[in-house]
Amino acid sequence: MFGPMFGTPAAAERTSGSAWLQAMLRFEAALASAQAEAGVIPVPAAEEIARHCRAELFDVGSIAERTVSSATPVIALVRDLTALVGAEAKPHVHRGATSQDVIDTAAMLVARDVLDLIIADLRAAAAECARLAERHRHTVMIARSLLQQALPTTFGCRCAGWLTALDEAIAALSRIQDERLAVQLGGAAGTLASLGTDGVRVVGLLAAELRLAEPVVPWHTDRTRVAELAGALGTAAGVLGKIALDVELHAQTEVGELAEGKAGGSSAMPHKQNPVSAVLITAATRRAPGLVATLLSAMPQEYERAAGAWQSEWEPLTELLRLVAAAAAQARRLLAELRVHPEKMAANLALTGGLVMAESAAGALMAGLGRTEAQALVARLCRRAVQEGTTLRAELLADPQVRAVLSEAEVVAATEPADYLGAGASFVDRALAAHAELENP
Amino acid sequence: MFGPMFGTPAAAERTSGSAWLQAMLRFEAALASAQAEAGVIPVPAAEEIARHCRAELFDVGSIAERTVSSATPVIALVRDLTALVGAEAKPHVHRGATSQDVIDTAAMLVARDVLDLIIADLRAAAAECARLAERHRHTVMIARSLLQQALPTTFGCRCAGWLTALDEAIAALSRIQDERLAVQLGGAAGTLASLGTDGVRVVGLLAAELRLAEPVVPWHTDRTRVAELAGALGTAAGVLGKIALDVELHAQTEVGELAEGKAGGSSAMPHKQNPVSAVLITAATRRAPGLVATLLSAMPQEYERAAGAWQSEWEPLTELLRLVAAAAAQARRLLAELRVHPEKMAANLALTGGLVMAESAAGALMAGLGRTEAQALVARLCRRAVQEGTTLRAELLADPQVRAVLSEAEVVAATEPADYLGAGASFVDRALAAHAELENP
Amino acid sequence: MFGPMFGTPAAAERTSGSAWLQAMLRFEAALASAQAEAGVIPVPAAEEIARHCRAELFDVGSIAERTVSSATPVIALVRDLTALVGAEAKPHVHRGATSQDVIDTAAMLVARDVLDLIIADLRAAAAECARLAERHRHTVMIARSLLQQALPTTFGCRCAGWLTALDEAIAALSRIQDERLAVQLGGAAGTLASLGTDGVRVVGLLAAELRLAEPVVPWHTDRTRVAELAGALGTAAGVLGKIALDVELHAQTEVGELAEGKAGGSSAMPHKQNPVSAVLITAATRRAPGLVATLLSAMPQEYERAAGAWQSEWEPLTELLRLVAAAAAQARRLLAELRVHPEKMAANLALTGGLVMAESAAGALMAGLGRTEAQALVARLCRRAVQEGTTLRAELLADPQVRAVLSEAEVVAATEPADYLGAGASFVDRALAAHAELENP
Amino acid sequence: MFGPMFGTPAAAERTSGSAWLQAMLRFEAALASAQAEAGVIPVPAAEEIARHCRAELFDVGSIAERTVSSATPVIALVRDLTALVGAEAKPHVHRGATSQDVIDTAAMLVARDVLDLIIADLRAAAAECARLAERHRHTVMIARSLLQQALPTTFGCRCAGWLTALDEAIAALSRIQDERLAVQLGGAAGTLASLGTDGVRVVGLLAAELRLAEPVVPWHTDRTRVAELAGALGTAAGVLGKIALDVELHAQTEVGELAEGKAGGSSAMPHKQNPVSAVLITAATRRAPGLVATLLSAMPQEYERAAGAWQSEWEPLTELLRLVAAAAAQARRLLAELRVHPEKMAANLALTGGLVMAESAAGALMAGLGRTEAQALVARLCRRAVQEGTTLRAELLADPQVRAVLSEAEVVAATEPADYLGAGASFVDRALAAHAELENP
Repeated sequence: MFGPMFGTPAAAERTSGSAWLQAMLRFEAALASAQAEAGVIPVPAAEEIARHCRAELFDVGSIAERTVSSATPVIALVRDLTALVGAEAKPHVHRGATSQDVIDTAAMLVARDVLDLIIADLRAAAAECARLAERHRHTVMIARSLLQQALPTTFGCRCAGWLTALDEAIAALSRIQDERLAVQLGGAAGTLASLGTDGVRVVGLLAAELRLAEPVVPWHTDRTRVAELAGALGTAAGVLGKIALDVELHAQTEVGELAEGKAGGSSAMPHKQNPVSAVLITAATRRAPGLVATLLSAMPQEYERAAGAWQSEWEPLTELLRLVAAAAAQARRLLAELRVHPEKMAANLALTGGLVMAESAAGALMAGLGRTEAQALVARLCRRAVQEGTTLRAELLADPQVRAVLSEAEVVAATEPADYLGAGASFVDRALAAHAELENP
Repeated sequence: MFGPMFGTPAAAERTSGSAWLQAMLRFEAALASAQAEAGVIPVPAAEEIARHCRAELFDVGSIAERTVSSATPVIALVRDLTALVGAEAKPHVHRGATSQDVIDTAAMLVARDVLDLIIADLRAAAAECARLAERHRHTVMIARSLLQQALPTTFGCRCAGWLTALDEAIAALSRIQDERLAVQLGGAAGTLASLGTDGVRVVGLLAAELRLAEPVVPWHTDRTRVAELAGALGTAAGVLGKIALDVELHAQTEVGELAEGKAGGSSAMPHKQNPVSAVLITAATRRAPGLVATLLSAMPQEYERAAGAWQSEWEPLTELLRLVAAAAAQARRLLAELRVHPEKMAANLALTGGLVMAESAAGALMAGLGRTEAQALVARLCRRAVQEGTTLRAELLADPQVRAVLSEAEVVAATEPADYLGAGASFVDRALAAHAELENP
Repeated sequence: MFGPMFGTPAAAERTSGSAWLQAMLRFEAALASAQAEAGVIPVPAAEEIARHCRAELFDVGSIAERTVSSATPVIALVRDLTALVGAEAKPHVHRGATSQDVIDTAAMLVARDVLDLIIADLRAAAAECARLAERHRHTVMIARSLLQQALPTTFGCRCAGWLTALDEAIAALSRIQDERLAVQLGGAAGTLASLGTDGVRVVGLLAAELRLAEPVVPWHTDRTRVAELAGALGTAAGVLGKIALDVELHAQTEVGELAEGKAGGSSAMPHKQNPVSAVLITAATRRAPGLVATLLSAMPQEYERAAGAWQSEWEPLTELLRLVAAAAAQARRLLAELRVHPEKMAANLALTGGLVMAESAAGALMAGLGRTEAQALVARLCRRAVQEGTTLRAELLADPQVRAVLSEAEVVAATEPADYLGAGASFVDRALAAHAELENP
Repeated sequence: MFGPMFGTPAAAERTSGSAWLQAMLRFEAALASAQAEAGVIPVPAAEEIARHCRAELFDVGSIAERTVSSATPVIALVRDLTALVGAEAKPHVHRGATSQDVIDTAAMLVARDVLDLIIADLRAAAAECARLAERHRHTVMIARSLLQQALPTTFGCRCAGWLTALDEAIAALSRIQDERLAVQLGGAAGTLASLGTDGVRVVGLLAAELRLAEPVVPWHTDRTRVAELAGALGTAAGVLGKIALDVELHAQTEVGELAEGKAGGSSAMPHKQNPVSAVLITAATRRAPGLVATLLSAMPQEYERAAGAWQSEWEPLTELLRLVAAAAAQARRLLAELRVHPEKMAANLALTGGLVMAESAAGALMAGLGRTEAQALVARLCRRAVQEGTTLRAELLADPQVRAVLSEAEVVAATEPADYLGAGASFVDRALAAHAELENP
């Protein structure tokens, strides 16, 4: 019922039972191929095996049902594969491998395929942020801390922040994908005993065949690879969640600075512009920390193969991949279609009657009055502006003490939000430059 | 691929998209019925609506797909239901309700149906524990702390501990099911505005119709009910995880005190008796804490309806129900088929040459020698028994200082594990009595 | 550095090392007393022991340091206590108990003492909510869903929701405190072997002495009590987090409907009204789910005493108690000092030009025009009101199709937020009645 | 009470309130220095400020107490620092910075200092693993999967696995320490507005001064750095937890293959060899996943400064650092003092009467009998060995079908565990080589 909200069709497909099945079969085919190349099994047997390692030849449902009696899908899979291949090839199916070799390698392949989707969507989302940062480099809006208006900034600055965070998340996921997704091959005891002296060579060939990293030693009960993958996914989820939260807040009826391109409507409530994409991103990414914790909790695994902790990884890892993929796809769309309302940003900036320029005004007065006196004076004028319903600028212009040290033009400049943006534009430039560097290294 | 390992067919069905759909339709039917009884809508319209609230008349897949644009399945559902019913009934479909009314009430109905399964399996598991506690009331085994042999206990005592924990989990889940699963009905603002003055009455009738509790006020953003349900499920998961962990440890090759009835085999490793059920219980229940945390994290929900936190509950709650149901079913089977090896328990008890009776021996000597002297003497004899490869009993019998205060029979009694069980049997009785009380109050 | 923000002085004291030490000593004193009453040890010995079970006679720091070598503070504690008492009493210190008996019972006593604080603060907070619900029963404000303005409600309704959630949290914590905090006494193997046939009787007397529940059997590795306590604390945290989140949102500069009594200021930003209490509540309660997960994860404990899981409970449980106590105290203050701005609520209600009354208007038109036509017409007029910058009421009054079926007074009534509150006032009454019932059963 | 168990003195000191205070003061001193170098403030003022940035000049307790009213310790700190310095320097204290600049930068400094401890202890632990892997390269023991005996391996192989996992954790933490710990400086809006055009330059100088990375843009609400740090700490915790779990299991009374150097004793239970260090590591590291989840949950932070999520990071991050440091220190000691019992490993290997060599025996028979027949025959002989209480080797030697294809020497070789270790030794070599490469790149 809720699947499509929390998984795009592409991510759903790449995390499906069929995808897992095909990944396991890719392991079996590549293992046979590597063993043939190493001279462990005959080449024709390897070819015969590879020819049958196609998911459509298998009944996923039947394999899934037979998992319950052994707590692993590999026994049924190997049985079915062995039944399919010719007699000559039968003894060479799954040679020297253990269940965990198949599942862990398949997990890495599934992860790689979903990471392809995630990274592509995150990069597209980052490109949208770069576009927005560029376009809104001078769109002044109020910065808010603790949900209170603080000082002026630009919407470009905000987008630069989103952009940098996305770029960092992309870099981390790419590093995991390139360096940490590794083949698993150790056999029942992690020694590859039944392959005699050929074990190490087969591991190397298998890694090459599957374009996965070759581990130093089998990692059956060293789950750092899974944990690092989970951590990077959890971090990416947090980055997406932050963007979605900002959009939800900016899209509030009372704030109105942003709206989703296709805001969800309600017939009974025609004024509502529900930030549907942001809500779905929020809903998906809020689940990541719990899943990461489950995967980290599973790291201490007994001896050479765990009694439960390892098996607890399968669904949460699959789910984490699916959720982050869904959130990344939604974020890409949300950012591409985002509607920005600079006029509402300007209106909100004016809401406090210029009080948000108090720091700026005090700064301008310091040279003439000293820090303490400048701050005290501005605080006094702020209070009066609130009481009288005027603006800070008006009060400054009317105050003799102020005018003794600042001209009208200086007062106006000191209370002009667009003139109090400090390094804002530079930060936008830096974020864009770093992004360009990442995209075209 | 992994579904059947982490969900029984019954639990999978009751947590499926179809089950959710049917639960939502039960809400719509009951709402119409309640409103007819309250005179808000015509009785024939309510009957027409109820007649069409059958999941088989709807296309779950299509509804699910249409959720993405609005972040809720209710809009599509109401549209399809309205299309199905006759013209007279159309204006009366979903009257006064909001999406969250449907989904929250459906969640309660889904939970109730899965709790039926869970509680039945937990009760059956408890009955098996009671049987084992009764039968093994006098089966002496070693108690272990920090995985080290400690003092004698009985396997019956252990089973009494499992029993009491299961009974507590059952009581907590039953209380939630009876008292805390409530109807949700508040309309878009939680005021049931469009029902005018009839709102409160409709809530009461709806609750009666669905046999759910009637809440004091709408609980759209008061998530205590969901949190309490999650907490009780998480606690039950922990209880089941403890039993599974014990079975895994007792079933170790080197311990060999318990084995699963149908231990999973391995052709290459014929001596293995994989504790498959225990592994699956462990794998399922290890995921509960992360899911509970996700649900607790979702409690702070904005204003009258949350932008993401509420939507993040749906899949984790469904999953938590499915996993605990799977674990409960496995535990029931595991306990029913558990093979107990008293002779191995006896052998392990003897492993330390009686050193585990040191406390008992020292206790027997205290009257004659004083506490400090008794303990020091026993410690000395223990060390000698280890060095000489004898037993503590032999050393005690041979020691003149001991024999000055204890007769041979007294030494034998003081080193007999079956005589050093304190309140063990009483505790078994108490657990059985409390269980009987719970079952036949 | 951050302690005072996340722990009131009272909660800090009741969760301190000294509080734990005193709780352990209360166990030792009560154990001796119970054993004296049961005739297991001499009465003077029990009195001598009790006389010395005062925290100020011990060096907490020294005991804490000596924990590292044994992973328990009890060995050092018992040694120091034994050293303090007279020779006659020495053999009777800590008779038959194991480390876990002391620590688990102490945890229950510490929990009870902190729950006293938490429940008192939650009840005071609930009383404030009742006061606010009463006073603002007719203070109309906009309800918001997905952070978008939806339909009118009252601030009283919101307070009624907070009130009910608090009352539920109080009921759950009180139930835990009354029924589930139990004495622990089992000895090393959970059999109380060294107490011979007196074990069960001593357990009962000890429970009576400490006013804790008497468990059916020792619960050394049945952690349901800890899990239930954690779950109830986590739920209370979520309830408080929801109130704080609402206050933060209502206090936004652009919303301005609520402010904290003593909002935190900033010299550079004089317009800021930081919702400091809400921020501290949020910061404290966001940590609860992770702590609850840690405690639930610790439930599967090996055999008769766990190797790590049990020991992992101590600090998280202490912390959870401290954080919820801090949040409850802050919430009490926040609610007592909360400043409500009905005029700003009214202004925000008018922000959409009456579009939030579209459902009401359509309802009024249905009798005359039919549901579909009524909704379509209102939607059309809403669009026009937005385009023309008028209000929905003005458009309704000016529309001939509307005026054919509704009089001016009827249009005005249908667009008056205060007239579209449905069961709002009834829900306030129900919440107040349920609260009164809870407070004066 | 429990502090010393979960925090070494060094880690406790570096995570204390004083350490945080000193880190904040290092920020203030470095900020002044950077601003002096940039010409923003006078050099003498910077020197005066730096001179007073010493924790011993401040009252930590008083600052901590004053945090409650503003939800930040920085206001009190800046006030006290300003009061300390000479009049000329007063206006230049904390120029242009915001609270979060101070606390985030301080967090990075605290993290760096604790990471120094953690990495040093992890490297020492890795060195011990390397030593053990080297020494026990040929120490044959049984590999276990699902807690069942599987096939032979060596203790050296296990240590190679631990070593590789530790090396991976060290590499990840070192990368974080070198690349991801960054200075924070953005001012109230993240624009450094009050520094005019000097902001970017000051950021660079400040980063150089503190030897922290210079971020692309202020990261006030981009929490990837904290999340990545948390993830790497959580992963390291999992690696340590796995080693501790293995030690606890190997140290079981019934297994007896490993013991801690200074196993904790019990006077009443002299045979116990409590694996105290392993228990403390387990207890500490089990808490990491919940803390990581809390930190990941805190990533979505509102606008330019969060209302609660950011503040929720402070204690959990501190605690995570402290716990991992404690676990790393314990692991170092545990591994340095670990007692290995090869004779018990050999005895356990023989427990099944050679059944663990079934895969090897079947492999040897395959050439002569074909795979299926070979496996079936071995399975038959295994069953007979169990029934008759003999060994698989004896049954093989006595079986005519076997002897038709294998000589006595061949049977003996095929049932010799030390001859069935496959790539075990190679894997040890690879782990040692990779470790040497890491240590001496």
